[in-house]
Amino acid sequence: MTTTVAAYAAPSSKAPLERTTIERRDVREHDVLIDIKFAGICHSDIHQAREGWGEAIFPMVPGHEIAGVVEAVGSGVTKFKVGDRVGVGCMVDSCRECENCLAGNEQHCLRGNVGTYNAVGHDGEPTYGGYSQKVVVDEAFTLRIPDGLSLDVAAPLLCAGITTYSPLKRWGAAPGRKVAVIGLGGLGHMAVKLAHAMGAEVTVLSQSLRKKDDGLKLGADHYYATSDEQTFKDLAGSFDVILSTVSAPLNFGAYLSLLKTNGALVNVGAPEEPISLNLFSLIGGNKVLAGSAIGGIAETQEMLDFCAEHNLGAEIELIEASQINEAYERVINSDVRYRFVIDTATI
Amino acid sequence: MTTTVAAYAAPSSKAPLERTTIERRDVREHDVLIDIKFAGICHSDIHQAREGWGEAIFPMVPGHEIAGVVEAVGSGVTKFKVGDRVGVGCMVDSCRECENCLAGNEQHCLRGNVGTYNAVGHDGEPTYGGYSQKVVVDEAFTLRIPDGLSLDVAAPLLCAGITTYSPLKRWGAAPGRKVAVIGLGGLGHMAVKLAHAMGAEVTVLSQSLRKKDDGLKLGADHYYATSDEQTFKDLAGSFDVILSTVSAPLNFGAYLSLLKTNGALVNVGAPEEPISLNLFSLIGGNKVLAGSAIGGIAETQEMLDFCAEHNLGAEIELIEASQINEAYERVINSDVRYRFVIDTATI
Repeated sequence: MTTTVAAYAAPSSKAPLERTTIERRDVREHDVLIDIKFAGICHSDIHQAREGWGEAIFPMVPGHEIAGVVEAVGSGVTKFKVGDRVGVGCMVDSCRECENCLAGNEQHCLRGNVGTYNAVGHDGEPTYGGYSQKVVVDEAFTLRIPDGLSLDVAAPLLCAGITTYSPLKRWGAAPGRKVAVIGLGGLGHMAVKLAHAMGAEVTVLSQSLRKKDDGLKLGADHYYATSDEQTFKDLAGSFDVILSTVSAPLNFGAYLSLLKTNGALVNVGAPEEPISLNLFSLIGGNKVLAGSAIGGIAETQEMLDFCAEHNLGAEIELIEASQINEAYERVINSDVRYRFVIDTATI
Repeated sequence: MTTTVAAYAAPSSKAPLERTTIERRDVREHDVLIDIKFAGICHSDIHQAREGWGEAIFPMVPGHEIAGVVEAVGSGVTKFKVGDRVGVGCMVDSCRECENCLAGNEQHCLRGNVGTYNAVGHDGEPTYGGYSQKVVVDEAFTLRIPDGLSLDVAAPLLCAGITTYSPLKRWGAAPGRKVAVIGLGGLGHMAVKLAHAMGAEVTVLSQSLRKKDDGLKLGADHYYATSDEQTFKDLAGSFDVILSTVSAPLNFGAYLSLLKTNGALVNVGAPEEPISLNLFSLIGGNKVLAGSAIGGIAETQEMLDFCAEHNLGAEIELIEASQINEAYERVINSDVRYRFVIDTATI
């Protein structure tokens, strides 16, 4: 048995998204039926819908920044009840048995996690994301959105929030520590808010000073233009942690020179082409180049609780579903401050 | 006032090393005069003597793996007395005031440390290394060689030992952890001994199985040939830490694939040319690519004490000073098991 719900889907990699209907499964024992209220637009939605990251499954209903309200629960559900405010991020299942799943790193499931969309579930059915009216998700992959957070600004936390929270925490954004954030987009603006809330001294490294006022309002202590060579002289050896949220090819040697001894440059965005790196830029100063991918389920809940405690949501532009294709163009042109969120009532 | 001592020096980058004499300063208030007994030959001696790492100071007396006995002390010396067994590593001074020096990271002194040779001291005089009969060093940069360690096998610990000990400790070589060592040379053989003594399960990744028997005797639990593609299939996702001790250009993507989630590939050797790296190989699995350079003075003492406690010295081939040039050729051809040490009585 299934339920038919309205959704926005890309019929193919070349075609614009359009309104359609999809089937959602009936709730199983451990499932939660979520009435979706808001869905964020992540740049990776566009990468996948346009097959920039390889062959994809169509029709595709993107969306892995989902916020809504529980409408029904399966007989075995213990964590949630009807009416609860909940979220779903980038994955809806994993093997739950491997070393990584058992350690709470479901995003690195050794058998592969099940993506919220553009994936095939353990039942053999394709998964469809948040650009739709409802979704059915196992309670183990459903997050609780604390009361203090509005659902619209909470939605982007499910990807942009956890993607930046996890590495900031691992690499030590904290009082007395200096953190730089490369790029002030959807990920970068959350990184600034989170690092500031963690007590770090925060510097934005952006191509230009165009968004400087915004950056300082978001919590940055300093703001530098990386198009100005003087920036790299002034900031040499300054930072404990640099978080790169951009996918543009960077001069990694230059950015590594901005780290203190033992400092870490962590990438959550990445250029599609390989980078060129002189390893002596890591050896001098015992430096670290690291990567980070979203976060596990428990850590995502921790992040949501942290955001509620510090009253942090994303900065959003709320749009109607009919504006999705236009929004995609604007994301590609970096013309959004700082995250588009779809009001799914308009689907 | 100075004292004339015999030494082996390279007169220029093209010429073989030859016997000569150099002047050593009289002991100052905080100085120790060391009667050198043994000096290890590090590959970096060759890089510097042949100007492979840039313009150098000639004549050059290489040697930064020095073990000897205290022959005299300055009036203010408190740590050492005549007859003490001591060592000197890669540096003989630093500013002692910057953030890094105060944190015990003198090797990363923000004003530059003073190398044991091929450098200029704070007194404006060039420094000369361990291929000589005696050396005068400030007690703050002199290490104590514990009684349990023979001076000949202790000498290489001052560079090869600390260079591998420091990253193994930082990145967590310990019981229950799997550590791989790339390359079984001067650095690699110490890494195997140290990681084994730290309680880790140790795997050697070497080009061939030529030194397999040695590797297992040194403490490795497993030994694989990296020339065999099957190695990379068998060992995918296996290691918490991989320490690369080689300067050959590696396929870093392939080695990163051998790390577990959150694992670290640490380079103490490095190719002279930039490497090509796809950042997705770090993002998937939250992986780390890091560098490490020797260690601070306190950590070097800790390493020597650890080696004494675990009865660890280098595997050496003791040579006479007249064999230095021949030894250089053999080091370049990887024909040494595993460190040449000069008996400085033969100078």
